Amino acid sequence: MIVGVIGAGQLARMMIPAALELGIDLRVLAEAEGMSAELAAVGVGDYHDRETVLAFVDGLDVVTFDHEHVPQDVLRAIVGSGVPVHPGPDALLYAQDKLLMRAKLSELGLPVPDWARVEDAEELGAFLADHGGRAVVKTARGGYDGKGVRVVRGAHEADDWFTALAEDGAGGALLVEELVDFTRELAQQVARRPSGEVVAWPLVETVQRDGVCAEVIAPAPHSAGRIADLAADIAIAVAEGIGVTGVLAVELFQTVDGRLLVNELAMRPHNSGHWSIDGSTTSQFEQHLRAVLDLPLGATGMHADWSVMINILGGPESGTLAERYPAALAAHPTAKIHNYGKAPRPGRKVGHVTVTGSDLDDVTYEARAAAAHFEG
Amino acid sequence: MIVGVIGAGQLARMMIPAALELGIDLRVLAEAEGMSAELAAVGVGDYHDRETVLAFVDGLDVVTFDHEHVPQDVLRAIVGSGVPVHPGPDALLYAQDKLLMRAKLSELGLPVPDWARVEDAEELGAFLADHGGRAVVKTARGGYDGKGVRVVRGAHEADDWFTALAEDGAGGALLVEELVDFTRELAQQVARRPSGEVVAWPLVETVQRDGVCAEVIAPAPHSAGRIADLAADIAIAVAEGIGVTGVLAVELFQTVDGRLLVNELAMRPHNSGHWSIDGSTTSQFEQHLRAVLDLPLGATGMHADWSVMINILGGPESGTLAERYPAALAAHPTAKIHNYGKAPRPGRKVGHVTVTGSDLDDVTYEARAAAAHFEG
Repeated sequence: MIVGVIGAGQLARMMIPAALELGIDLRVLAEAEGMSAELAAVGVGDYHDRETVLAFVDGLDVVTFDHEHVPQDVLRAIVGSGVPVHPGPDALLYAQDKLLMRAKLSELGLPVPDWARVEDAEELGAFLADHGGRAVVKTARGGYDGKGVRVVRGAHEADDWFTALAEDGAGGALLVEELVDFTRELAQQVARRPSGEVVAWPLVETVQRDGVCAEVIAPAPHSAGRIADLAADIAIAVAEGIGVTGVLAVELFQTVDGRLLVNELAMRPHNSGHWSIDGSTTSQFEQHLRAVLDLPLGATGMHADWSVMINILGGPESGTLAERYPAALAAHPTAKIHNYGKAPRPGRKVGHVTVTGSDLDDVTYEARAAAAHFEG
Repeated sequence: MIVGVIGAGQLARMMIPAALELGIDLRVLAEAEGMSAELAAVGVGDYHDRETVLAFVDGLDVVTFDHEHVPQDVLRAIVGSGVPVHPGPDALLYAQDKLLMRAKLSELGLPVPDWARVEDAEELGAFLADHGGRAVVKTARGGYDGKGVRVVRGAHEADDWFTALAEDGAGGALLVEELVDFTRELAQQVARRPSGEVVAWPLVETVQRDGVCAEVIAPAPHSAGRIADLAADIAIAVAEGIGVTGVLAVELFQTVDGRLLVNELAMRPHNSGHWSIDGSTTSQFEQHLRAVLDLPLGATGMHADWSVMINILGGPESGTLAERYPAALAAHPTAKIHNYGKAPRPGRKVGHVTVTGSDLDDVTYEARAAAAHFEG
């Protein structure tokens, strides 16, 4: 079993343990030397370059991804070479282009915020007029971790992006959405095999800071019953409607009036599922590998009542994460530390901490306190 | 943090996931190409060769092991070069020579079977006469998985080994022990840091077949209280008395009259602790790395009431383990499969399966049934 991964970030890195346990030969195409998944890297190359990628995939049983940025023409060239690609280009299109994603979800009848495709300030102004004078504007492509997302209160507050699109010459447009009045953000993760089997993990609550995931609580508190069922139904409908293979994370808003609306999709292991390494019978990384190989999927039950994951954002102002281990590990013997092998830099995801247990307050305290050792 | 591992078997392989999570640079010196821990191998070389080993350890923060066979002169040369070695040569001596181990444990006042050092058939005959005409003879060095161990009922049944020792010219002797009337075998695993901290996992029951570990049940049934406390006390006394650093497994006999006797010692991750990867907050592999780096040790609690580990011995008569995945994973979604990346061969440890849960009968059934998919 040979699985190729395009991209060598922390998601590829966290696939390595799962691959080792299952005896999978994981081969990573890295963007550069010294990346998180370097241990499994078999080469460095530009994933935009068709020849580089075709040389990399030769002889693989399946190709999957650390990110969703591989261009469609490259994806289709891999498929054309006879190597299976999961998730496939037809599905990835909806992770690559938010306008297409919104249109597809609407077509599938899934709950999304009010949205529109806007090509200029006039169209944006019209949308604002219909939505209380405020909205969220997103670039259709290239955004992540809060980048390419902007709250606007005037028709001209996205002029720079319109100008850039005009200069690009590709005839693009921006996505504008209602500013949803939500009580919290949730994420529902599922895995789907090419042959159709789908499994769901428990619904989780995610806490964002400055547009970046900061904390995840599994399961989402006060979500048993209707909300959990609804979230799972939505995510399974997305996976099946779009034909996603591998793991899929559906980010959701829970509105003040108790509805769930789909925010974003991620067709790969996702920050909202990192808790599963330590908290679930089957981690998202093992499940992703099983899914893309079309192997039967694993159980998604939890080891304990609660898992809380805290991102280490930025890391120490000086020195390395490892220098903080003596104090952090001594104070928090139940904390599971995950170090991505990246140099600390303000705002960068350099690791995470997970704690599991039966009391949510205790678990949250331990996880936050352990993670705090690695900041500042 | 750079940790070197001498030996590239499955124990070194299972250190790789723990090293990745903690951001440890793990570097393995392999005996040959294509071994289990090849992913982390930085070279192939003979661990008996001092120059090879000294070149390998240059620049490491600490050296540890996949096995206990590195010769004392090589171990002492590493220490002499200034690189810390854990466990150190003074401790490893007692894992390398069973006569020295028996003498040391007796000196420490720890409970062991009656034993003697015997140099010829006459001395063996005298021991047999004192122990009901039967005994276990062991070579002091080189035995593992039932090799170098023989039950004898006559003074001349070890003559071939005496002859081999005489030809060896090293003036060696054999270890003879009473044949212990035991009800079951247990194993107590502990971890100890160079600076002194010691932690213990729950006591486990081990089931051997043909001298090879076949199953492990954690915790050992009906062991709460006196037996568990006694086992932990013994193992900690061994670790402290011998100065073991890293993880230590103490194999024990539980006798018909309710005593515990020390059988064997292993100063490295051990088959009796594989359950901890899926069943404990801190796996033996993560703990070993923490211990040899003198980092604070992790919590040793269990994810569920029971963990059962079944070895895959030999593997499929034809084909690979992976060919059995579709059936095995579909039938046993809670089973955690560990594939060592070794070619199947009769009797060889090629992988293991662990299942955790709240009902011992269910857990045992699932683990055995999942493992059975990979045999025959």
